[in-house]
Amino acid sequence: MLQLTTVSLDDAQRLIRLGIAKAEEIGSPSNIAVVDAGGNLVAHVRMDGAQIGSIDHSINKAFTSVACQSSTQALGDDAQPGGQFYGIANSINGRAIIFAGGVPLYHGEHIVGGVGVSGGSGEQDQTVAEAAAAAL
Amino acid sequence: MLQLTTVSLDDAQRLIRLGIAKAEEIGSPSNIAVVDAGGNLVAHVRMDGAQIGSIDHSINKAFTSVACQSSTQALGDDAQPGGQFYGIANSINGRAIIFAGGVPLYHGEHIVGGVGVSGGSGEQDQTVAEAAAAAL
Amino acid sequence: MLQLTTVSLDDAQRLIRLGIAKAEEIGSPSNIAVVDAGGNLVAHVRMDGAQIGSIDHSINKAFTSVACQSSTQALGDDAQPGGQFYGIANSINGRAIIFAGGVPLYHGEHIVGGVGVSGGSGEQDQTVAEAAAAAL
Amino acid sequence: MLQLTTVSLDDAQRLIRLGIAKAEEIGSPSNIAVVDAGGNLVAHVRMDGAQIGSIDHSINKAFTSVACQSSTQALGDDAQPGGQFYGIANSINGRAIIFAGGVPLYHGEHIVGGVGVSGGSGEQDQTVAEAAAAAL
Repeated sequence: MLQLTTVSLDDAQRLIRLGIAKAEEIGSPSNIAVVDAGGNLVAHVRMDGAQIGSIDHSINKAFTSVACQSSTQALGDDAQPGGQFYGIANSINGRAIIFAGGVPLYHGEHIVGGVGVSGGSGEQDQTVAEAAAAAL
Repeated sequence: MLQLTTVSLDDAQRLIRLGIAKAEEIGSPSNIAVVDAGGNLVAHVRMDGAQIGSIDHSINKAFTSVACQSSTQALGDDAQPGGQFYGIANSINGRAIIFAGGVPLYHGEHIVGGVGVSGGSGEQDQTVAEAAAAAL
Repeated sequence: MLQLTTVSLDDAQRLIRLGIAKAEEIGSPSNIAVVDAGGNLVAHVRMDGAQIGSIDHSINKAFTSVACQSSTQALGDDAQPGGQFYGIANSINGRAIIFAGGVPLYHGEHIVGGVGVSGGSGEQDQTVAEAAAAAL
Repeated sequence: MLQLTTVSLDDAQRLIRLGIAKAEEIGSPSNIAVVDAGGNLVAHVRMDGAQIGSIDHSINKAFTSVACQSSTQALGDDAQPGGQFYGIANSINGRAIIFAGGVPLYHGEHIVGGVGVSGGSGEQDQTVAEAAAAAL
């Protein structure tokens, strides 16, 4: 048997509150999603004015960070032409995202979930995601 | 040009809080999703212990209530064998849901969004959705 | 070699104008779509206030009427439990629609396209579709 | 509650007429699609002789311009290898298009819809889309 530690809804909502605060601070209306250790959605918000294409991006960035045990930004480095994971974009039924904004959540050495942020530039999304992840 | 009124993130989060309170009261861990007037997700939560298949169900119930301008329960009545919409289940790219738990949100005469609840029995989901919708 | 007769954009737009007039007359804001003899979309409109779930329904009803060389209403009769095409709903990559509103367009004995209407009751959709089809 | 301005069917049809005129002028049979502020299709035409693969392209270019709050051409610049959105192509359930021809529609500072054109070269599609968008 395995024991799994994973984020709760309370954890997810605390992360999202921190993410919203950071997104407001840098003026980047965002979608913010949190998934658990199984890659399944725990909570999502779309801030007023945030783009609708980023709904899926935020959820799938969070998913990818757990599914591939990597930030989406780092995965993107390996997914460039010639890279070891070139072609991974949109694999896993279209869900693998390879640009910044998805960050795995660690509890000690273990991944317990992921956060995905989308709506701004890659740099803005990463900033918001890291601010949210710091809540754990 | 058309003028449209639609739920904000604040509205969605207020609905979700009421939905969670009702779900706790009746002991039915739920997924609760809110979409805007365009059918696009505004916010989602999965309460601790709620089933993961219900993530999509809650989002797509909320979507269906806007997309078909009907509660999913009422749509289900018309979708029985011999009914005028028999066969509508899983249409719209697999998103049309025809069992209880999706309720359109009205502002005066206009639909401004939808709420979708999934995780319990049809009756429980409907109870939670109606409690959430009452927040508007 | 085969010679194919198929609706033009002019034909489609004439059908749609007649459909809109009928939809306004009976007070049923509709989506109206026309496909050609290959089942491919020629034109679509969504009248103001018509439900968004009906976008796909209208296009796929038109498609189904050509793809199955049958009105969607007649196909629905065969798709009931026990019928010879029971289970056809949402086949063809989710595109087969089995409720009223899709009508093949004939030129002499040949199907040259299809019209699909969605947004009202099955009876309203069928009425609008037949009014549009009469333009040919 | 949020107040949203979005294109009407009248707006969409005026845009499409202008788009068709430009497409005829430059000899590029096109698919032209208009979506509203929620990314949902309002109207579509396929000019006689325009390629059928472009049906989806036109609809999804219009969708992408709203969903990502950007022209598809500008998005394509960021989606090149090494760019901040490399890998975004075909995300959002396969709907994100990253080549020219999709243009968001502005009313003052707000995006009220999008137009997508497909069927010619990237330059031709962009020319037709911009001519259509000028109708607003």
